Amino acid sequence: MNWSAEDLVYMQRALTQAARGQYYAPPNPSVGCVLVRDGEVVGEGHSQPAGQAHAEIMALRMAGERAAGATAYVTLEPCSHHGRTPPCADALVNAGVTRVVAALRDPNPLVAGQGLARLRAAGVDVAHGLLAKEAAEHHRGFLSRMIRQRPWLRLKVATSLDGRTALQNGQSQWITGPQARADVQRLRARSSAMLTGIGTVLADDAQLTSRDIDIGRPLLRVVVDSRLRMPPTARMLQSPGVLIATAYAEESRASALVNAGAEVLVCADAAGQVDMGALLHELGRRGCNEVTTEAGASLNGALLRAGLVDELVLYQAPVLIGDSARGTAWLELDDLANKHAPVVKERRMVGDDLRWDLRFTDSALFVTQE
Amino acid sequence: MNWSAEDLVYMQRALTQAARGQYYAPPNPSVGCVLVRDGEVVGEGHSQPAGQAHAEIMALRMAGERAAGATAYVTLEPCSHHGRTPPCADALVNAGVTRVVAALRDPNPLVAGQGLARLRAAGVDVAHGLLAKEAAEHHRGFLSRMIRQRPWLRLKVATSLDGRTALQNGQSQWITGPQARADVQRLRARSSAMLTGIGTVLADDAQLTSRDIDIGRPLLRVVVDSRLRMPPTARMLQSPGVLIATAYAEESRASALVNAGAEVLVCADAAGQVDMGALLHELGRRGCNEVTTEAGASLNGALLRAGLVDELVLYQAPVLIGDSARGTAWLELDDLANKHAPVVKERRMVGDDLRWDLRFTDSALFVTQE
Repeated sequence: MNWSAEDLVYMQRALTQAARGQYYAPPNPSVGCVLVRDGEVVGEGHSQPAGQAHAEIMALRMAGERAAGATAYVTLEPCSHHGRTPPCADALVNAGVTRVVAALRDPNPLVAGQGLARLRAAGVDVAHGLLAKEAAEHHRGFLSRMIRQRPWLRLKVATSLDGRTALQNGQSQWITGPQARADVQRLRARSSAMLTGIGTVLADDAQLTSRDIDIGRPLLRVVVDSRLRMPPTARMLQSPGVLIATAYAEESRASALVNAGAEVLVCADAAGQVDMGALLHELGRRGCNEVTTEAGASLNGALLRAGLVDELVLYQAPVLIGDSARGTAWLELDDLANKHAPVVKERRMVGDDLRWDLRFTDSALFVTQE
Repeated sequence: MNWSAEDLVYMQRALTQAARGQYYAPPNPSVGCVLVRDGEVVGEGHSQPAGQAHAEIMALRMAGERAAGATAYVTLEPCSHHGRTPPCADALVNAGVTRVVAALRDPNPLVAGQGLARLRAAGVDVAHGLLAKEAAEHHRGFLSRMIRQRPWLRLKVATSLDGRTALQNGQSQWITGPQARADVQRLRARSSAMLTGIGTVLADDAQLTSRDIDIGRPLLRVVVDSRLRMPPTARMLQSPGVLIATAYAEESRASALVNAGAEVLVCADAAGQVDMGALLHELGRRGCNEVTTEAGASLNGALLRAGLVDELVLYQAPVLIGDSARGTAWLELDDLANKHAPVVKERRMVGDDLRWDLRFTDSALFVTQE
């Protein structure tokens, strides 16, 4: 497909729209839509919170009668099924849209090409694949859940230059600066769930909520706690939405946690640890698109060893703390050939700290071929 | 002093000249000189190996009779004393140079303003202070030795993103890539001495020579070896110029090392360790301008704790190795307020690795005031 310069501009604009819904759209994908008629943008919009209007509907509302004869640029194939809202494909047809360009086909088995087929059957000129990689990067959480049946897993780590996250005595506030911490809040806000280990809970008693950004939806907090050591008094339990994944749910402890508002999930592997692959699959089943891990070396290492980490966001403060402090990830390599070597996607300053965006998984792989 | 744009251009050119002698000039400072007459560069040069021509002489030779009436731009005050070569101040006067602009006055007690005074007395228009900070950065090793009676100490470290220099089994070749290793050779080539610990010698049996760059002068290798465990068969001893600093020189071991070509220096502190401050002072006395440390966490930590590190050059490979591997520096902080926080001078890619140029000492402090 040869795209025009105009096509590129409007799809880029649709991606910009899509970014605006990223905090509150989950578990839905945060789609962007731009309606263009005679070289004029007549409508645009992005996904509203789940159960409310999709991006196409927002754009159609804005365009009104001017949607007739327009081209719709959408970051993801319009839906064709009745979910909590009616199918967007029908709405586009009914409004008289004559051409639809989708960046990506929707791998959701409930859609899977049927949205585009429905449009085509109604006489709409249909194309897809424009800025597909960029759209896959934006929609990587949703695509991961649809294609791999598990969320996109992001590891967030804040360290000194010598790879230390905290002193041996637990002191870690604050190695990185305020701008990096604000950036972490944005990572949390776009996540469906936060994942941490019981060690971090016991050390920091963190809440792992979206503190600074109102996302208008619950943010699930998941604690990996093989021996069910989670205290029912943990601050995390002060707000609802805590899932404790354990390998062995001792009855009285489990009830105390349930009484404190938590859900306890038993998912053990053969070694008596929490089965991380099974846990992630369960989180996918529950509609988690992106999961962000803020944990210590033990859980970070387990996830890396299991090959489950898709993205690593590393904030480095230009300081040295020394080898007696806590490290980034527990790994026991006996050959450097086995080192973990992610791709460097981006590196930029966030305040005085350096932010690395590292990838173990290429989101472009989620672009489904014809 | 208000400098003209022309002044700036030519002093910058003198600094570019100065950089050309950096590998072979030590223990002399690598000076640059540019001679300008009527807006034309008539001569330029930089320091030759010690005992050979200084920068001013090289520039005067190139200019010949055109030096008469010229302005000389020099990165360091011309010498006024008979060392291994006659005074450059006299040579400039004799050649008819009518103006001399020095970036820095020479803190060498044998010069210390007398070079400029000698020129002034001969009727030459004299000024100094142009691009003084830039010149102090270039001459930081020489200035450190003159002002602080010890070399400028650079720590070189190559790590993974999680701050690891080698696996626990010692494997470290190669965490960083070929471009970073080539860059390390340039750090070695501009050094007067390399400093390492006995642990690194026993683990790697490294030679620490200037392998890829012919510097035309000896590169001293210094091993911190409190208990004199250095094997007389160490590869480092295959080339002359090894100094072993120990806290206790057991007679037979010391003789074996001396017979193998090494020098053994006893310099113990109260704790029975090698006194690093005293060792650096001794290296300064021996004419070392810049010393580069390539060592393990133990010596790195000792130097950081002693506040002796001026510069840290850190190469980071975008890989993770894990907490069971060897760290950067052994420090035992019990309060993050005591973290080591150097200034980030530069950060740039070297091949696939990130090179941090970090400073604990501001070389601009070596600019002596009037």
